[in-house]
Amino acid sequence: MNNLLGIGELERREIEELLALAESFEGIDLREVKKVPALRGRTVLNLFMEPSTRTRSSFELAAKRLSADVLNFSAAGSSVEKGESFKDTVLTLSAQGPDLIVVRAPWAGAAELVARWSGAKVVNAGDGGHEHPTQALVDLYALKRRMGRLEGLSVWVVGDIAHSRVARSLLIALQKVGARATVCGPPTLIPPAVEALGADVSYTLAGLQEADVVYALRLQRERMAELPLPSLREYAACYQIDGGRLAPGQLLCHAGPVNRGVEVDGRVVDLPQSAVLDQVRAGLAVRMAVIYALLAGGRERAAVQAVGGVA
Amino acid sequence: MNNLLGIGELERREIEELLALAESFEGIDLREVKKVPALRGRTVLNLFMEPSTRTRSSFELAAKRLSADVLNFSAAGSSVEKGESFKDTVLTLSAQGPDLIVVRAPWAGAAELVARWSGAKVVNAGDGGHEHPTQALVDLYALKRRMGRLEGLSVWVVGDIAHSRVARSLLIALQKVGARATVCGPPTLIPPAVEALGADVSYTLAGLQEADVVYALRLQRERMAELPLPSLREYAACYQIDGGRLAPGQLLCHAGPVNRGVEVDGRVVDLPQSAVLDQVRAGLAVRMAVIYALLAGGRERAAVQAVGGVA
Amino acid sequence: MNNLLGIGELERREIEELLALAESFEGIDLREVKKVPALRGRTVLNLFMEPSTRTRSSFELAAKRLSADVLNFSAAGSSVEKGESFKDTVLTLSAQGPDLIVVRAPWAGAAELVARWSGAKVVNAGDGGHEHPTQALVDLYALKRRMGRLEGLSVWVVGDIAHSRVARSLLIALQKVGARATVCGPPTLIPPAVEALGADVSYTLAGLQEADVVYALRLQRERMAELPLPSLREYAACYQIDGGRLAPGQLLCHAGPVNRGVEVDGRVVDLPQSAVLDQVRAGLAVRMAVIYALLAGGRERAAVQAVGGVA
Repeated sequence: MNNLLGIGELERREIEELLALAESFEGIDLREVKKVPALRGRTVLNLFMEPSTRTRSSFELAAKRLSADVLNFSAAGSSVEKGESFKDTVLTLSAQGPDLIVVRAPWAGAAELVARWSGAKVVNAGDGGHEHPTQALVDLYALKRRMGRLEGLSVWVVGDIAHSRVARSLLIALQKVGARATVCGPPTLIPPAVEALGADVSYTLAGLQEADVVYALRLQRERMAELPLPSLREYAACYQIDGGRLAPGQLLCHAGPVNRGVEVDGRVVDLPQSAVLDQVRAGLAVRMAVIYALLAGGRERAAVQAVGGVA
Repeated sequence: MNNLLGIGELERREIEELLALAESFEGIDLREVKKVPALRGRTVLNLFMEPSTRTRSSFELAAKRLSADVLNFSAAGSSVEKGESFKDTVLTLSAQGPDLIVVRAPWAGAAELVARWSGAKVVNAGDGGHEHPTQALVDLYALKRRMGRLEGLSVWVVGDIAHSRVARSLLIALQKVGARATVCGPPTLIPPAVEALGADVSYTLAGLQEADVVYALRLQRERMAELPLPSLREYAACYQIDGGRLAPGQLLCHAGPVNRGVEVDGRVVDLPQSAVLDQVRAGLAVRMAVIYALLAGGRERAAVQAVGGVA
Repeated sequence: MNNLLGIGELERREIEELLALAESFEGIDLREVKKVPALRGRTVLNLFMEPSTRTRSSFELAAKRLSADVLNFSAAGSSVEKGESFKDTVLTLSAQGPDLIVVRAPWAGAAELVARWSGAKVVNAGDGGHEHPTQALVDLYALKRRMGRLEGLSVWVVGDIAHSRVARSLLIALQKVGARATVCGPPTLIPPAVEALGADVSYTLAGLQEADVVYALRLQRERMAELPLPSLREYAACYQIDGGRLAPGQLLCHAGPVNRGVEVDGRVVDLPQSAVLDQVRAGLAVRMAVIYALLAGGRERAAVQAVGGVA
C-alpha cells in the first residue's frame, strides 16, 4: 500500500485487514501510556486546505500515538495567502521530506495530484466532492462493532448524496464488503452516477423500515451555489431523521458535523441507537491503522507486537 | 481532584499543596533537560474558543514538559465555522479520548458544561466573566514568592472588577488563604456581589498606601457593549497606577495583557517592584502542578520523584 | 554564537562550519528514525508575526528532529489582537523560558529587539526588508551542492532587490565566501546602498550569459505601497527569467514562494537546472545546524556523535 486515495483501491481482504489492525490499536486506548514507539522519527504532514475539526485532530492524535512527529499546515497563515500555487506549496512541503502527507482540499482529485507531485505517501482526507476513504473505513468499523457484521446489512444513506464525498466513499465500501445500500433524497441531490455504485435509489423515506442502518448526511450548504431545495423546512419535513422515522433497533450514523434540526432531529443523535460518537471514536484507531500500514515496515511491526499493541 | 472549574472548589490545604508542587517543578526549569516523563502517552487537549497568548502557550508548554502529547484546537479553522454547536464540538473531541481538556470560552459556565459532556478531566482556562482559577493560583504563587507570605497581606485590586474573571477568582483565592482584599474602581465597574467575596470596596485610590500589593486589572473593552466611563482619559486620571501612586515597597501585579497608558503607566510595569513577569513565569510551574495533580496516579508520582522532579 | 540576527555577524570560517554541520545532518534524513536526541527537553518558540509556509515548517521540523519541543506562536489568535504591544508579547513569551526564539516579523530590526528583550537565544527568520540569514546559509549550501564550490562563482540576483531581505542577506553572504554578485532590475527596485555590499549593478539582462547562477527574486508586492513599475507585463518583458534567457548549465535559484509567470516562467522552475527544491531541502539540514550550534553544549555534541549524526 503506497497511498490511500480512494476506497476503491482496496480489495475486500485489505479492508478487513485494516479493520482488524484498527481493532488491535483500540486496546492501546485502555492503557495508561497510550503510545507505541512504532513510528518514532517519522514525520506526518497534515496539509489542510479546508477547515476541519475531527479529521485533522484524529489524524494528528493517531500519528502522535504511533510516536511520529506531526506538522500541521493549514491554508490560513501560509504562503498560499501570498499567491503561491497549490502545486508549489506541495512541492515545497514535500522537499522537507515528510514520510506521509494527509491532505484535505476543496478540489476533487487534489490528493491524487499530491501523490503525483510528492515522494511521500499520501492519504486522502477528503478532496472536494470526490472521496474520503478513511471515513468509509471508520464507518465500516463502527457498523461492524455495533451490528456484529457487515455482510448483508441494509444501509440507507439519506440526504445530500450529490455533494458528499463521505457518501461516495461509503457506497463503494459497502459494495465491497457485501452490504446493500439505498440512497434516499430529493432528485436534485442524487447524482445519476449513483446506481453505478450498486445503490438502490428512493426519493422518499417510505421504505426506511427495512433498513438496518440509517446513515444521515449533512446538507453541504457550503458546496452549493444556491440551495437546490424549496426550503430547509420542506427538506426537513420530507427527509429529516427524527424519533418517528427511526425504528427501534435501527442504528443511526452521521459523519458529523451534524446540523441538528436539519438532516436529523437533535434528540435522536443522543439516543443509544445513535452511533455518531462511536464513529468519532473509531476514527482514531482506524487512522492509526492506516498510517501504520503505510509507514511501518517489518521492523516496526515486530516492535509493536513486542509491546502488545498489535496481536 | 477531578476537574478545576473554579477556585472555590479547592480547600486552603489543597491550594497550598498545589503551590508546593509548583515549587518543586520550578527546579526542572534550571536543568538542561527540562522534562519529566510523568505523563508520557497522555493527551492534553487545548480547546480555545477565544484568542490567548500566555495561557494557551503556558498550558501547552506545561503539558509538554510533563511529556504529554498536546492537541491544540481553536475556533478558527474548525467545524465551528461550519455551524457545529459547541456541544457537538466537545462531544466529538472527547470521543477521541483526551485525558484532559483545557477550555477557554467566552461564555460563563462553559468549562462546567465541558465537564458534564466529556469523560475527560477539565481545567477552566477562563470562561467569560466567570472564573480563571489557574490564574488565581499563579497570582498566589507569585505573591508568596515576592512577599514571603499570603496570610494577612493587604491586596488592592484596581479597575474593571465587573468584567474580570481574573478578579473574581483572585478574590475568592485571597479570602481562602487569609489575605485581605480591597476592590477599587468606578461604581459602574464594581458589581454589588463583590462584598460577598469578602472584599472591601473603595471608589477612589485615596487609601491605596495601606496596600502591600496593588493588582491592576485590564479594562476589558472587548466585553463592554459600550464604555461605562466618561472617557479613557478620565479613567486614567482617577485609577491609573503610576509612579506617583505606587509607593516604594508595594508590589505591582497585572495578569496581562497590559494596556500600557490605560490602567497602568507603562513605566511602572518595568520597575523592579513589578511582579508582572514573575506571574507569567509562575504560570508554567503552576500549570504543570495542576495538570500533574489531575492526571498523575501513584505510579507516575513515584517516577517523577525518582528523577528528582518532585521532592 | 549567541544569536543569528544577520549573516554579517558570521566569519567566513563560521559559515563554512555551519555548512559542514548541515551536511552531517543530511545523513539523518536517510535513516528510518530521522531523529537525534541532542536537544531533548529544550524548547524552541516559533514567533511568527507574518504568514510563512516553508520557513516556519522548516524550523519546526528541524527542531523536532533534534528532539526539542516546539511551540508555535502566530499573530492571529493571540493577545496581539487584544492590542498587546510586540514588546509585551515577547516579554511574556520569554518569561515562559524558551531556549530559542525563532522570530519573523514585518519590521526591520525586530529580531534584534527580541534578542535585547529576551534571555533566550534568537534566530532571525526574516525581519521586514532587512535580513533573513538562514535563507542565505541555505542558498550557499544549495549552491555549493550543485556547483561544487562557492569561491569565484558569478551570481546574478534579478528582480526586486529593494524590498528583499533574502537579497540583502545573500549579497552579504556571497561577498564573505568570495563569490561575485551582480544585481539586476529596474532602477526603482535597486537601492543605492547595494554597491556597498560589493555587488555590480545592471539595469538590463544583457550580460546575463556570464552568470554561473541566476537567482530570481519574488516581486514583494505586499511590501510595495504602489507598484513602482509601469506594469507587471512590462516587468516580465524586461526581467522575467524564461527558457530563452537562461543558458544551459546556468543554475536557477529562487527562495520561493514563486510567482510563476511574473519573475520567472513557470516552466524553467521545473527544469533540472533549477535548484528551487534543493533550496527547500537544504533548509531543513541548515536550520538543524543553526539550532544545534546555538543550543547544544559539549554534552549533546558528544551524544550526537555517538549516534553518528555528526561525523
